[in-house]
Amino acid sequence: MVYIGIDVGGTGIQAGVVTEKGEILCKGSIVTRTDIPFADQVAAMARCAMETVEKAGLTLNDVKSVGLGVPGIVDPRTGRVPFCTNLGWHDVPLNEEFRKHIDKPVFIGNDATVAGLAESVAGVSAGTSSSVFLTLGTGVGGGIIIDGKVWNGFHGVGSEIGHMILEADGVPCTCGNRGCLERYCSATAIIRMAREEMDNSPDSMIMEMAKGDKANINAKIVFDAAKAGDPAGVKLFSRYVKYLGQAIANVINFLDPEVIVLGGGVSKAGDFLLDAVREETPKYCLYKTMPTSTIYLAELGPDAGIIGAAMLGQ
Amino acid sequence: MVYIGIDVGGTGIQAGVVTEKGEILCKGSIVTRTDIPFADQVAAMARCAMETVEKAGLTLNDVKSVGLGVPGIVDPRTGRVPFCTNLGWHDVPLNEEFRKHIDKPVFIGNDATVAGLAESVAGVSAGTSSSVFLTLGTGVGGGIIIDGKVWNGFHGVGSEIGHMILEADGVPCTCGNRGCLERYCSATAIIRMAREEMDNSPDSMIMEMAKGDKANINAKIVFDAAKAGDPAGVKLFSRYVKYLGQAIANVINFLDPEVIVLGGGVSKAGDFLLDAVREETPKYCLYKTMPTSTIYLAELGPDAGIIGAAMLGQ
Repeated sequence: MVYIGIDVGGTGIQAGVVTEKGEILCKGSIVTRTDIPFADQVAAMARCAMETVEKAGLTLNDVKSVGLGVPGIVDPRTGRVPFCTNLGWHDVPLNEEFRKHIDKPVFIGNDATVAGLAESVAGVSAGTSSSVFLTLGTGVGGGIIIDGKVWNGFHGVGSEIGHMILEADGVPCTCGNRGCLERYCSATAIIRMAREEMDNSPDSMIMEMAKGDKANINAKIVFDAAKAGDPAGVKLFSRYVKYLGQAIANVINFLDPEVIVLGGGVSKAGDFLLDAVREETPKYCLYKTMPTSTIYLAELGPDAGIIGAAMLGQ
Repeated sequence: MVYIGIDVGGTGIQAGVVTEKGEILCKGSIVTRTDIPFADQVAAMARCAMETVEKAGLTLNDVKSVGLGVPGIVDPRTGRVPFCTNLGWHDVPLNEEFRKHIDKPVFIGNDATVAGLAESVAGVSAGTSSSVFLTLGTGVGGGIIIDGKVWNGFHGVGSEIGHMILEADGVPCTCGNRGCLERYCSATAIIRMAREEMDNSPDSMIMEMAKGDKANINAKIVFDAAKAGDPAGVKLFSRYVKYLGQAIANVINFLDPEVIVLGGGVSKAGDFLLDAVREETPKYCLYKTMPTSTIYLAELGPDAGIIGAAMLGQ
């Protein structure tokens, strides 16, 4: 038996046929259209999924279940999506609508959650019983696996690690609160901190790499400058790692999972980031001499969305 | 069948015979002695437990298991206690030592964790599948129940909610870090904030109730002053509730349990505190219009330690 996994993104939707071990046999994709009604969006997704099954030389008889990873809040118990801003959804019955096209068990999950699940089935955290996945991108998302199962809260509003307060009365967040973790640990945060810092360090390599325009600064430029020993780069990198270490230590002091996995664009900095974070995090853990969560980088990349969505049915 | 629950405290040790519904049939207690070797401490606990069983008119044949709630880190998988400062224990084999006296399955848990378990079996969160218990006392402890089971981390160092960072680079904590949640949400925090505030408000009712000596200020005095409308009292209470609301919202945004239970000395403020916290918390939740964790006050009081320890064997 195989599983269909659908990664519902704001610009594109990817469908994949996935084995029980989390291997993708075949993939297909469509462009996300927000200008058509919800029912038509779902019909297009189901068509894409069916075509992918056929392309793999299989039929629906070979499919055990369908999983959908959605960039919003989902309620796995009811199969409804209360909010998904990128798709323009508000309290839609996603499971029910999808089953009109493919009559198999349908499961839904948040996109960061399914990426975490994918890593725990076929990626760096495979074989572990508990893990917390952090996507460090434009924002900070989270996926929690406990006893091998996804946990996104009793009401489906959990694992929003990016909106835990890390600095009471801190930097204003897009969510309306202040001091949320993602204001310090996202790629966006690195860029904001770097732009602010450039007023003090106009001669930094960062400005040179950004061709003299602060608008061109991105996380990679800051990390590259840090690697090259540029003082402003080193200062910004250390500051970022300190915040990220505190955020990870909060996860450890609260949930203490077997492993913590860092994904998202920022994690592409690789071992340069991982080594620094592994050194910084224990400083903020309560029990410094006890064994605790091992921190890894995600390894599945963009396929994690398809794999994790498929694995919701396992 | 009944269960033995032992609440191991820094000053006293309570043993109880508990039914499977979490009702205490009989209790006994001994004074905690830290001047005797570990083996002798455990022997005394086991004797107290046996006497309590006999006092209940039962024998060991009626006992299914023994649970011990310990004010420190525990490793339920190995039955060892890596640290328990109050008892002077460092990496002791508690389960193994206890079974030399009473040869029944032995389970151990952290004291805040077992108090949370007790509430979820026989208290305010009975019948719920997930809950987070917060003890608001000298420090802030936590107990996490997921899918009806205790979760204190893969390595046993989780549920230390009091040491999650709520204010990066904030108030120094006894643990060596800065800005830990318990520096803002414990009874100790209320007292600290009140003493500081008294320099600005020497005419406050708080100083009167403390007989003119800041050293006499306690959380009850501050809350009573707030209830009576004393401006400094109201200000301090609002500040405390804001921090506690942020802390609870962090738990919701991360774990979103079915319910959150507030216990410990501060929770004795009752509905005055509960109503304010219920109003404040949603301000810091990411999804303000979604149903989320209901907040309650603990209802079992000091017996929670015995009941929860006993229920570890269920």
